[in-house]
Parts: sequence; structure tokens; C-alpha cells
Amino acid sequence: MHRILSTELPAHAGRTVALEGWVHRRRLLKSVAFLILRDRAGLAQVVAAPTLLAGFPEETVVRVTGAARANPAAPGGVEVIEPAIEALTDPAEPPPFDLYRPELSAALPTVLDHAPVALRHPRLRAVFQLSAAATAGYRKALDALDFTEIHTPKLVGSATESGANVFGIDYFGRPAYLAQSPQFYKQMMVGVFERVYEVGPVFRAEPHDTVRHLAQYTSLDAELGFVADHRDVMAVLREAVAGMVAEIAVRADRALSTVDVKLPAVPERIPAVHFADAFDLVGRATGEDLSGEPDLAPAHERWLCEWAVREYGTELLFVTGYPMVKRPFYTHPEPGRPAFSNSFDLLFRGMEVATGGQRLHRYGDYLAALAGQDLAPYESYLQAFRYGMPPHGGWAIGLERFVARLAGLPNVRQATLFPRDLHRLTP
Amino acid sequence: MHRILSTELPAHAGRTVALEGWVHRRRLLKSVAFLILRDRAGLAQVVAAPTLLAGFPEETVVRVTGAARANPAAPGGVEVIEPAIEALTDPAEPPPFDLYRPELSAALPTVLDHAPVALRHPRLRAVFQLSAAATAGYRKALDALDFTEIHTPKLVGSATESGANVFGIDYFGRPAYLAQSPQFYKQMMVGVFERVYEVGPVFRAEPHDTVRHLAQYTSLDAELGFVADHRDVMAVLREAVAGMVAEIAVRADRALSTVDVKLPAVPERIPAVHFADAFDLVGRATGEDLSGEPDLAPAHERWLCEWAVREYGTELLFVTGYPMVKRPFYTHPEPGRPAFSNSFDLLFRGMEVATGGQRLHRYGDYLAALAGQDLAPYESYLQAFRYGMPPHGGWAIGLERFVARLAGLPNVRQATLFPRDLHRLTP
Repeated sequence: MHRILSTELPAHAGRTVALEGWVHRRRLLKSVAFLILRDRAGLAQVVAAPTLLAGFPEETVVRVTGAARANPAAPGGVEVIEPAIEALTDPAEPPPFDLYRPELSAALPTVLDHAPVALRHPRLRAVFQLSAAATAGYRKALDALDFTEIHTPKLVGSATESGANVFGIDYFGRPAYLAQSPQFYKQMMVGVFERVYEVGPVFRAEPHDTVRHLAQYTSLDAELGFVADHRDVMAVLREAVAGMVAEIAVRADRALSTVDVKLPAVPERIPAVHFADAFDLVGRATGEDLSGEPDLAPAHERWLCEWAVREYGTELLFVTGYPMVKRPFYTHPEPGRPAFSNSFDLLFRGMEVATGGQRLHRYGDYLAALAGQDLAPYESYLQAFRYGMPPHGGWAIGLERFVARLAGLPNVRQATLFPRDLHRLTP
Repeated sequence: MHRILSTELPAHAGRTVALEGWVHRRRLLKSVAFLILRDRAGLAQVVAAPTLLAGFPEETVVRVTGAARANPAAPGGVEVIEPAIEALTDPAEPPPFDLYRPELSAALPTVLDHAPVALRHPRLRAVFQLSAAATAGYRKALDALDFTEIHTPKLVGSATESGANVFGIDYFGRPAYLAQSPQFYKQMMVGVFERVYEVGPVFRAEPHDTVRHLAQYTSLDAELGFVADHRDVMAVLREAVAGMVAEIAVRADRALSTVDVKLPAVPERIPAVHFADAFDLVGRATGEDLSGEPDLAPAHERWLCEWAVREYGTELLFVTGYPMVKRPFYTHPEPGRPAFSNSFDLLFRGMEVATGGQRLHRYGDYLAALAGQDLAPYESYLQAFRYGMPPHGGWAIGLERFVARLAGLPNVRQATLFPRDLHRLTP
């Protein structure tokens, strides 16, 4: 008999059905027992004699054949009675924690050490359904805007982009590095496709052990040509974020209720505050003297997000114009105020989730920005500019950060299937 | 004035328009000159006085404002006359080859060394539009079948999956390795989502310099639970390939004509031949003595594909049942013939483009398969099986190989934006 999913049970009341899944929980009462079966779609209740369930401990994979019967007390209003139960594998060992409780009662390191089984918990699992839907929405929004998806090298010959925090690798006996971002490649590809995006891993040999940093994360990158300045880039990023949020609503509404979070409203135009003004605001509110500070601290980002909720009723805020000293060499300066830049960060619920800006596009500007450095490692990157590149810009969204903010998770590791950090290399 | 794309020109005949793009070609005749402008959508013809074009060499990025006029001889039937041309960048240097000729007349190493500019050639560019459409189709087909997209670690603590050809990395002073595939992780995630896929880079320290191997390539992975055996996996892989081909037809029809190739018909059921029978066929046809050979050579794959065209009228062929000795330890043996396996390769136009099979799913079977080895590096992988895993299987498609076969490209590097191999680490 063809397997049906737990969610299809209500449509089969009165018929014989076959379900397959994991023994989520057994509840033994005096004269009757319930087996709660978990499959990819949800949970189903099976009523059986207590003795029948003894051989099927929690997490054993089983096939249940029986009669579907309406019962308003069962999940979905229909349960399975008079079951025949067949194990599809040996009886499972007892998991290190009860997966059927509403919350997983274990510390984060324990959860991460046991990720293959911990992630089966409906609440943990739902986070990654939000992640998958967000990624699909990102691609959908950019596909509709005529972007082309690209795949770029993760193995690079020199650590040119920022120079710091790169992983070294032995490349057939030569030194090489893991790419910190697809920055150079996505810019070069603006010369080919005008509008490109990439969803892929990036690598940071991040020596800090914080709740917001990972050694590998998923970067949602994009780059587009023929922009007037960074504001055109921000407008397209707004579309990408709106697409992510919209697709979560469509594809992952059950995951949203499981995690019990609300989607942000994405305003038609996400408000923007210039870095200089942001520091004035924060300084005046907190009494801190921030003059000469080149960057926002995490506490400042949190304050600005609270301010944006009060001022504009939005959980999304752009900060623009970051000082050039804090931005990479390819950043376009702000016309008329060259200490500032045509760059931006996107803050969401208290944290930076995306960074971007307008880039230099003239060959001469690159030569000036790299003056005094050996140009050899930049040779292929500079080709793009020697042979004509339009004004362009782009961004990178940290997927795990975005999902952590969305799901209200304090640690970015909770939005990563198998996180990698200073200490963790397994599972 | 708002920019329009070259393909929008026909709808604007009789109006003033602005175009932006690259100077693809200048043709200077006696009294008139043509500027062919290239943008992401295509080409447009601009008619101008020869003197006007002198300052805008090929590949310079320009904005052209002028009158759109019907001219049946122009691409799209409409050209731009009386133009004002403004450079958006400095005049470009002469590219190392003429991008406007129908074919790029340079050897592959030269093309690869100059990838940022070579990829602007319409024929080269089109290959990657096929690639993007194929990837989108892959995801669309699997999304419709209730798969969940995952992102897994590319940095792993041990080279357990096959042991050979891994890149070593310095991970905060400890040895680590680049993942050769998401194999272990996608299997573990079957325990969470039942059906998962990943599109991402995989790394092989491949010591051979061939037309079919790369040090980094894009792997289209999937894994699904609750299968009867490998044939269920093959049926879903058929859906994925059909989705790839269908999406190319929808999204990349112009790229298809540019590359001048035909899509394969994907039969409702892709024919399958068992490894043992395949060797009989090849041996009888070629007179080779193949007894005891554990694997098909490239020439055998080519012969089998020609045979499938003759026999079944299809360019896609499954070979099943590869000898266990040539398959990894997690491979499920063939019931009743344990020297063979429940595995398969998918051949397409003469070459293997995907490999897959049913995996072991019982904890005890893993302990037996790994008998005599130190189990510590497998500890987290084995968790999944200790706590209950359904019968499952999956596959990996090599995106670049698939696209190379599709586009009739002899070298897989021609289907890779920036290939990585034994010798090449730039651009």
C-alpha cells in the first residue's frame, strides 16, 4: 500500500492507510497506548494495545498500517486504529534528550554535539525551514529582476580582499586560501551579466568566539551594474529582503507558528540614516562621546533599531555613509565628503544582517586606491576595469544572522545546521 | 531619462530612448558609422557620424540617447539615430581578442587567463545562462517534491568519506580538510527532513589533468528517505533532470540558440542497464575481454550512450549495480548478489554526469562495513543510524559536466566561470 503523510490523514478517514515515520512518543495508559508518529509533514496519532508498542522505542523508524478514524481529540482530527506496526530498522537507542517535549532541555554545546538527532526536534527543525524559504525567496526576487546566478571559486591564490582572517590551504604543494567572500568575482561578473547573485559558503578564520561570528557561513551575495549610486543598490536589496519575507509566509507558515515568531513588515522604502547622523543620535541619547569613532558597536546597532521602531515603526534600518577608513579599498567615496563612503549596512532587530555599497568602477580609481601595493595579485580583478565596467554596487546578507534575528535566536549557531567556529569542527 | 534594454527597443520606435551598455563593435563606413551596443539583454544598433565614435573604443561603457527608428536591417528591426553618446567610464583598453566575432579565436588557456573579459563573448556567456537555468530547474523540481534545501560544512575534521584526494587546511592550528561532498551531512539530514538537497561547491585534490576533472566543482546533491531501493531514487533523479531541461527551455531559450544546441528529450522512464549486462554488451561489441574489470572506462561510457540512442532513442542512460569494490562503504549491496550494489551512474551524451544509489541505513550494517577501523571520526555520522534512519538513497550531479555535455563542450573548464585544477588557481 502507498504511504500517505500525517497531514493527509484527515482526507482518508474511514479508509485503511499506511504511514511511515519515526516513533516520536509512546504514551502508555492503563488499557490503551498511543504512538505518536512523526514524518516530514507533522505528527499522527496511532492507538494500540500497550504490549504492541514495547518493541518500538522512540526514534525507531516504522511503517504503520491501520484504519483511519475520526477523533476530534487527535492531531488533525483523525487517528489510526487497529494498527499493524513494522520496524524499518532496528530498535533505536534512547536519544540523549526527549525530542517530544515542547523545548529541548539541553545546553547549546550538547545540542550541537548531537545535531544529527537534536535537529529532529520540531522547533529546531523549523528554523531551517525558515532558512530554506528565505533563500528561495531571495533567488525568486532576484530572478524576477533579471539577475543571473553564478558559482565562483572558493580557493584563491592570494588573500587580497582584506588580508586578515583567511584560512590557508595546501593547494597541490602551493599556498592558497579559502575565499572570504565572492567580492572580486561578483564584480567581474557585472561586466558579463550586469546583475549577478551567488548563494554559497564563505570562510573567515575568525579568532573571536562570539554569538554572531562563524568560521563558515552562507552568504547571499549580489552585485549590479548601471546604478547611480548606493541608493539604487539599497532599493534592490529591499526587494530581495521583501522576497525573502514573502516566501517564508508562503512556504513556511507552519514553521513560523512552530518557532512562534512574527515576520517583519518590509516598508516600501526602508528608512536610512547617515553614519554621521546615527552617531549624533546615539551620542545625544546615551551621553557617550563618540567623536572620532570609526564604527558602530553592537550596542549602538541595538539602540538604532529601537529608535527606528519608535521613529518609523520599522524593524529594518539602513545606516549609510560609513567612514572610508572602515571600508575596503574598492568602496566608492561619498561625493563631496570623501571621508565618508557610498556604503551601507542593513540592521534588522538589533543587528547588522547585510553590508554593501557602491564600488569604484574606473580603472584609474583602482590604481589610485591600490597605490604602493604590488598589483600582481590583483591582475585578473583589474582586467574587468581595464576593459570597461559600469558604475555598480552590491551587498552580502549573512543568511544565518538573518534567520537568527527572524527566529529570535540569541546565538547565530542556532541558525546553522553544523556550525564551525574557533573550537568546533564536528559534527 | 530611464534606461531601456536593447530588447525593448522595438517597442519604442518613433520615440527618444536611452540605452546603456558596452561598445560591442564599431563599423566605420565611408559616410556613416555603426555602433553596436551590448547590454545584458542583447545587441542594439546605433547610427552615428564616424567622427563621433572615435572616443569610444570597444568595451567602453556608454550611455546613448537618441531617436528609435524602424529599420528592417537592424537587430530587432529598430535602430537608434542622431545619438548623443556619453562614456560612463574611461575609454577601455583594447581587449586581448575581438569579442564581436562569432567565435573567440584564442586557445583555452588564453581564454581562461582573461576570463573577466572573455566571458563577455555572447557564446561563452550563454553557457552560464544554461547553467543558471539548469540549477533553477533542479531546485524547482525538488521543491515541488517536498525537499528541503540545506547548507552543510565545507570544513571537516577528518577525511573519512573516501580518504583520498582531500585538500588539507590549517584550522586555527589544527588539521582539517575541505569536504569532498556533503554525503554524510545529507544522509544525517534525511533523519530530520526526509528529503534534502544542496547546491554547493565540493573540493577534490584531483592529481589528474583531464578534460573532465576539476579541483572545485558545483555539486547538485540530493538524498531522500523511505525508498524501496535505488530505483525509487532513480525515478526522483529523473524528475530533477527533467526539471533542469524544462527550465532551460523556459528561461534560457535565447542562450540555447546562441550556443546552438538542442535539449535532450527526457523519457518518462530513463532506461537502465545493469553493470554486468553493460559489460557483456560492450565486450561483445568491441571484442574486449572485460571480465574482472571493476569499472567502466570513458570509452565504454561513450559506447553505451551510442547504444542507448540506437536501442531506446534516448541520450540518457542509467547504468546500475556497480561492483561493491568500486563504491564507498555506505553503499547498499544488491540483495542476492552482494558483489554488486544498489547504485547507479547516469550517463548523458557519452559521459557520467551523476552518481548515486541506495545507502545502508541500519546501525549494525554500518558497524559491519567499518569493522576494523577507528570509529571515532565517524561518531557523529553514526549518531543518525543509532537513533533510527529510514531506507534512503541519493545522488550527486556534477553541474559543470552536465552543462558541458548539454552545450557540446569538450572540456569541463568551458562550463566553469573560473576553473580550478592542478595548475590553475587564477583568475
